[in-house]
Amino acid sequence: MKKHNFSAGPAILPASVIKEAAAGVLELDGIGMSILEISHRSAEFIAIAAEAESLARELLQIPADYAVLFLSGGASGQFSMSAMNLLNENQSAGYLDTGTWSSKAIKEAKAFGKVQVLASSKDQNYNYIPTGYDIPAGLRYVHVTSNNTIFGTQLREFPTTDAPLVADMSSDIFSRRIPLEKFGLIYAGAQKNMGPAGVTLVIVRKDLLGQVDRHLPSMLDYRIHIENESMFNTPPVYPIYVSMLTMRWVKAQGGLEAMERHNEAKAKLLYDEIERNPRFQCTVPNPQDRSLMNVTFVCTDDADTKPFLAAAEAAGCDGIKGHRSVGGFRASIYNSMPLESVQVLVDVMKNF
Amino acid sequence: MKKHNFSAGPAILPASVIKEAAAGVLELDGIGMSILEISHRSAEFIAIAAEAESLARELLQIPADYAVLFLSGGASGQFSMSAMNLLNENQSAGYLDTGTWSSKAIKEAKAFGKVQVLASSKDQNYNYIPTGYDIPAGLRYVHVTSNNTIFGTQLREFPTTDAPLVADMSSDIFSRRIPLEKFGLIYAGAQKNMGPAGVTLVIVRKDLLGQVDRHLPSMLDYRIHIENESMFNTPPVYPIYVSMLTMRWVKAQGGLEAMERHNEAKAKLLYDEIERNPRFQCTVPNPQDRSLMNVTFVCTDDADTKPFLAAAEAAGCDGIKGHRSVGGFRASIYNSMPLESVQVLVDVMKNF
Ligand SMILES: Cc1ncc(COP(=O)(O)O)c(C=O)c1O
Ligand SMILES: Cc1ncc(COP(=O)(O)O)c(C=O)c1O
Ligand SMILES: [Mg+2]
Ligand SMILES: [Mg+2]
Ligand SMILES: [Mg+2]
Ligand SMILES: [Mg+2]
Repeated sequence: MKKHNFSAGPAILPASVIKEAAAGVLELDGIGMSILEISHRSAEFIAIAAEAESLARELLQIPADYAVLFLSGGASGQFSMSAMNLLNENQSAGYLDTGTWSSKAIKEAKAFGKVQVLASSKDQNYNYIPTGYDIPAGLRYVHVTSNNTIFGTQLREFPTTDAPLVADMSSDIFSRRIPLEKFGLIYAGAQKNMGPAGVTLVIVRKDLLGQVDRHLPSMLDYRIHIENESMFNTPPVYPIYVSMLTMRWVKAQGGLEAMERHNEAKAKLLYDEIERNPRFQCTVPNPQDRSLMNVTFVCTDDADTKPFLAAAEAAGCDGIKGHRSVGGFRASIYNSMPLESVQVLVDVMKNF
Repeated sequence: MKKHNFSAGPAILPASVIKEAAAGVLELDGIGMSILEISHRSAEFIAIAAEAESLARELLQIPADYAVLFLSGGASGQFSMSAMNLLNENQSAGYLDTGTWSSKAIKEAKAFGKVQVLASSKDQNYNYIPTGYDIPAGLRYVHVTSNNTIFGTQLREFPTTDAPLVADMSSDIFSRRIPLEKFGLIYAGAQKNMGPAGVTLVIVRKDLLGQVDRHLPSMLDYRIHIENESMFNTPPVYPIYVSMLTMRWVKAQGGLEAMERHNEAKAKLLYDEIERNPRFQCTVPNPQDRSLMNVTFVCTDDADTKPFLAAAEAAGCDGIKGHRSVGGFRASIYNSMPLESVQVLVDVMKNF
């Protein structure tokens, strides 16, 4: 039976990318060797890495004063690395607390400077995006999580502030156009919208670097990675290769504008059914706050939860069990998720 | 034409592993999904990670008081992470300086405590392993690079000291049996003898942890990774999968004893020809210091260098150009390198 992969991450990749990714393991482009066993200094891999960077630049329209890095360590590594590189001990950064990942970013940053939580939706189990909060002047940066993977909320608009934004875009990178000029640093673990697990995209405005007093170990210093074009040490070759293939696919689909339309259509299909169907309910009350990537919902009657999960699984819908901190269901419908798969889930809901 | 992959890393993997690794990308074990798109919390991946750990434990005979971790960030990440986790500012660690990688480890460690270079072979461009040096008492640990990938030297014996050894085994992990009880910490980037780039094996004696005063970011704290069984955050799923397949292969070959015999036979074949053939010369004078993994040699007459490289490449021998800091040639003949491929190179030398 065909599986429809609604997993929150590592997550679905385009079927065509999976095929190319498997072929590259057997033999990369007729070179007589696997992508798994070529040197990262080989002409072949240097071309792959360069294409990955230029696709990221093209898709997100990243100007030359920003560096584009492919690092390892996940988005969790960036929670500390971003603060370590940007924030001096006596400086303040503002953080918007919109979920588990925001809180972890806050926790890690506290070791490096003063952290001001600008607003939090923790009081309602993170089921909304705070508004109407003040952002004081003089912050070094303002950190946001653009999409809250666990709680199914998303920042449709980004805060307006004089400080550069630092954003964890792990679960909605490349899913929509963004106002890049507002951001000083963007990071994203690949394993939702960019590729397989094992690589993290970092986009950083270069003039923000080199202003902290502390010692930075080489591997944790963005400047060292910039100087070495992400090849200070052996990069995660295969995750970068498959991310490059996935970005090629995004571009072939029509880029971020096309992704945006595609993602809006899929989300509408699913949210409309949740609204319409009395047996289901969205966990995020305000439609404006609902994520286009992770759709979180519950059964109105908890007795339906188990049988609905079974019905969805019987239809091949995989990975829709909600995160334990929310319960119910979470359908992750990233870029690579086809509309047809969302329709399969909606049909299960209709027929349930 | 069949390629013989003598690259120093990322490096050759067994042909059977490449096949399985490609199949897993298309579909993992009949589950209807690719290994690239399953959750790291799925039953399937948890089983893979558990098998990777238990294979590492079995092959190296690692007892329960050591943790086995699969981290990201490469061996270069471990240069700082190991010192950060083990060394207080007022404590001293001894380092053996046997090459580029040792020097980098020394540089990174200096930020965290007192570093004593016990001996160095830098005076002879690292073409030997120092002996006869003193190791003072009271060191927190003694750091060694078990195999010097660039310079073609290897520690056949490990230093005797009361302090636990910390070893970078990136380029000879799983290639021979080791006296595990001497080590407090072992780390190895996967991309030579363990699998593809993107994951780093860390083996650490647990009682050595939790004794430093400094703040450790979560991602850089071994204890956090131990508590979370290497799943504190999304691990590099595919690199771990392929490493597990490679360890299965090592086990199927007969484990480390068999690898040792196999590696000795291959190295003997190549070193014997270098010795015998007046047109070639090993860069490491003392046979005892020569690496079984990276065989470095030059042409006696430099005018032969270019034509020999061309002849080797014409025979399908890839990646034998020496590192710029040594020149000449480097044939990396890791576990997965078949004797037949070494024979091809030796035949080129004979017929040159
Ligand atoms: C928004 C967000 N940030 C951070 C993370 C953690 O990423 P990683 O596992 O790559 O460290 C996740 C993972 O699910 C996420 O969704
Ligand atoms: C012995 C040794 N240590 C460390 C490294 C650096 O490893 P990585 O690129 O994984 O950081 C290498 C890479 O060639 C190596 O051979
Ligand atoms: Mg969240
Ligand atoms: Mg409803
Ligand atoms: Mg070396
Ligand atoms: Mg000779």
